[in-house]
Amino acid sequence: MNTLFLPELREMLAEDRTDELREFCTALHPARTAEFMEGLDNEETWRVLQHAQPTLQAEVFQYFSVDRQVELIATQDEKQIAVLVTQLPADDAVDLLREVPEDRVDAILALVPAPDRRDIRRLQTFPEGTAGAMMTTEVACLSETLTVRQALDELSRQAERLETIYYIYVVDTTNHLRGVVSGRLLISAIGRPETCLADLMKTDVVSVKVLDDQEQVAQKVEFYNIMAIPVVDDANHMMGIITHDDVIDVVREEAAEDVQRIVAVKPLSDSYLRTPVLLLSWKRGFWLLILFFAGLSTAFALRMYQSWLDSYAWLVLFIPLIISSGGNSGSQSSTLIISALVTKDVELSDWGLIVRREIIMGLILGGIMGAMGFLCALILAPSPFHALIIPITILCVVLCGTCMGSVLPLIFKRMGLDPAMMSNQFVAGLSDLLGILIYVNVALLFLR
Amino acid sequence: MNTLFLPELREMLAEDRTDELREFCTALHPARTAEFMEGLDNEETWRVLQHAQPTLQAEVFQYFSVDRQVELIATQDEKQIAVLVTQLPADDAVDLLREVPEDRVDAILALVPAPDRRDIRRLQTFPEGTAGAMMTTEVACLSETLTVRQALDELSRQAERLETIYYIYVVDTTNHLRGVVSGRLLISAIGRPETCLADLMKTDVVSVKVLDDQEQVAQKVEFYNIMAIPVVDDANHMMGIITHDDVIDVVREEAAEDVQRIVAVKPLSDSYLRTPVLLLSWKRGFWLLILFFAGLSTAFALRMYQSWLDSYAWLVLFIPLIISSGGNSGSQSSTLIISALVTKDVELSDWGLIVRREIIMGLILGGIMGAMGFLCALILAPSPFHALIIPITILCVVLCGTCMGSVLPLIFKRMGLDPAMMSNQFVAGLSDLLGILIYVNVALLFLR
Repeated sequence: MNTLFLPELREMLAEDRTDELREFCTALHPARTAEFMEGLDNEETWRVLQHAQPTLQAEVFQYFSVDRQVELIATQDEKQIAVLVTQLPADDAVDLLREVPEDRVDAILALVPAPDRRDIRRLQTFPEGTAGAMMTTEVACLSETLTVRQALDELSRQAERLETIYYIYVVDTTNHLRGVVSGRLLISAIGRPETCLADLMKTDVVSVKVLDDQEQVAQKVEFYNIMAIPVVDDANHMMGIITHDDVIDVVREEAAEDVQRIVAVKPLSDSYLRTPVLLLSWKRGFWLLILFFAGLSTAFALRMYQSWLDSYAWLVLFIPLIISSGGNSGSQSSTLIISALVTKDVELSDWGLIVRREIIMGLILGGIMGAMGFLCALILAPSPFHALIIPITILCVVLCGTCMGSVLPLIFKRMGLDPAMMSNQFVAGLSDLLGILIYVNVALLFLR
Repeated sequence: MNTLFLPELREMLAEDRTDELREFCTALHPARTAEFMEGLDNEETWRVLQHAQPTLQAEVFQYFSVDRQVELIATQDEKQIAVLVTQLPADDAVDLLREVPEDRVDAILALVPAPDRRDIRRLQTFPEGTAGAMMTTEVACLSETLTVRQALDELSRQAERLETIYYIYVVDTTNHLRGVVSGRLLISAIGRPETCLADLMKTDVVSVKVLDDQEQVAQKVEFYNIMAIPVVDDANHMMGIITHDDVIDVVREEAAEDVQRIVAVKPLSDSYLRTPVLLLSWKRGFWLLILFFAGLSTAFALRMYQSWLDSYAWLVLFIPLIISSGGNSGSQSSTLIISALVTKDVELSDWGLIVRREIIMGLILGGIMGAMGFLCALILAPSPFHALIIPITILCVVLCGTCMGSVLPLIFKRMGLDPAMMSNQFVAGLSDLLGILIYVNVALLFLR
């Protein structure tokens, strides 16, 4: 929390020094204004914000944390909130209203001007995670019949209202998306003011459909390296745009979900602290129980060799080590392959190369770990000959781990399943069981 | 691979139908042009590209995969490549030249016009991972004394050369960064063409230093929700800008590194397939060996209780299960907390709340798993009384796992270390050892 300006701000409020408060709201970047206001209570915050224009109020407001925003909204009357909601980009307004009790939403929206209300209501109908729910409707759409001069004048009038004018989308009279003109292209055509937009625009427009998945949207924006992407309905009517900042959020969100899948947690739809404990327990417990059953199977596998383990009790000491060696190297492999598949660094067709590399790495890593294990086994085993069981087992287990860890994600992908969803758990469970079986059988070979 | 156009393209090449080839190069989005050319060999690709203007050539070229780009460069003479390098944004040119043998780089750069060559050479001096290495020097910089009309004319002249004009940076006569004017603001001021940029610009500019870390850059761009960020030296001289597409790359890269750390792989600087097997073995082996020593310590811990394990051999069956229960629940906790720390969903000051939540989850998850374990123990243990050892151990081990998993990342963070770097390995190693100790001691309590 930045408390640098707090005393001054409180003094200004106490003495009602309007000019200075207005200066405070306007002089800095809105993000910094918000930062300096972090220490104020809700009522003080609203009093300071009164000294900014509604547009600026909304900008500063967006830089508060979500929790803070919800708190601030809870303490104000509907009228003030309606002013704020009107100023927010429609997609952000929808996100904010999702945090507000249902009955208050209606009261607030009743006070929002009709066109903005319609926009918000429309966006609310799209399911979360779709392009429709990500888009904003404040987009620069111009008719294809306008000239460069007319387009600039029109934009100059609309500029205040728009979230972005990095691209100007060109539509026909019935709002079909026909083309796109970048801000750069428009400005470079200033010398030819009578050129028609239809002659300037690029007609091969990259767009997404309203119901497309957010991950698809992010991939398209990244692939085409564009700042914003238009959203159209099935008949190619222009519906809105999605800007790069929402795309970065999606990339972060999907990356977090991948991490959660890798450690066997069902993806959370909210942040850690905002997910209820019982829901989180379920999301963790689901996979934990599956892993638990895999663990149980090792107990029953060991039981088959019980009489024999009783005679060679020193072998028990290495059970945890052997299991964890296989599990750790396996989960390294599967995670590396899963992330490489996600980022398209590897394709299914590379499987031969991948397996060859993993075999080599399994031999190297297993060899080194086996050598270390041998040194310890010399201490714990009854004879150097018996001690040989340990390095041989470790080599086999690590090799199995790297091969399984790399092949299973490829098989899942081949079967059309999400490789991130299952492979790590599969690898963990299988490598526990395989580790025990390999261990016991190598030992049998030596001890018979 | 998209082979839709391949026959036509080959026919056009064979019959040298220049007009159609030119049409092919210009009609589509450059990304699609590149896509349709995927099936061509290197020589055919270059022959098709000859029909596009150098600017467009560079655009299409950038949509080929990196491997393809390197291949294409290897098969062409320096002169053609110099044309291409001149057209690429300087930051992308540097990235490309990094893939080319040292001696060829010099030959190519000798053919690049002096100003572009200087830009490239300067960018090459910044270490990878810094703002300087990410930035491009093609930036719209205008003097603060220009009027809106002059600025638009100047931009219109420069537009071709610039990567972005979403922001216009305003500098004084000695190139100090003084302010920023968004494209939107400039266009909205078209009605007041004599306004001076100095009166229009915002002076509280968010910028980064050339040697700032790329993760810092990404965080700033995300926090301030901006399309591009200017890069300055220590004296606030304007050096270049970093655009949002490079930021998305960084976000993806850092997310992949976090995943690698979580499964105990030292972060790769290159993609999976492009990292040499020996280097990859080292990056994996480093942590694997540390985990291995943790595993070895369990062997020695078990040894202390060996005579006693011999008498109660059925207890051995549950060792893998108990260890993996603690490890799995612990790594879930630590990963959730690490990602929440990275995304700032939780702060150090939340530690009380976090621990409370993890204790509750540990009790719930441990309770359920313990109950399942009890049912199995009824089969494998000599009596129901003895079977009680299993659920009690599992409950304790899972509780330990969730608490350690959540507290260790916080402690690492508090000590100023990267929580992602160590905690998961710590949790894995510690939970193996603790699991054994808890197990043996619970059992001793019951069996004495």
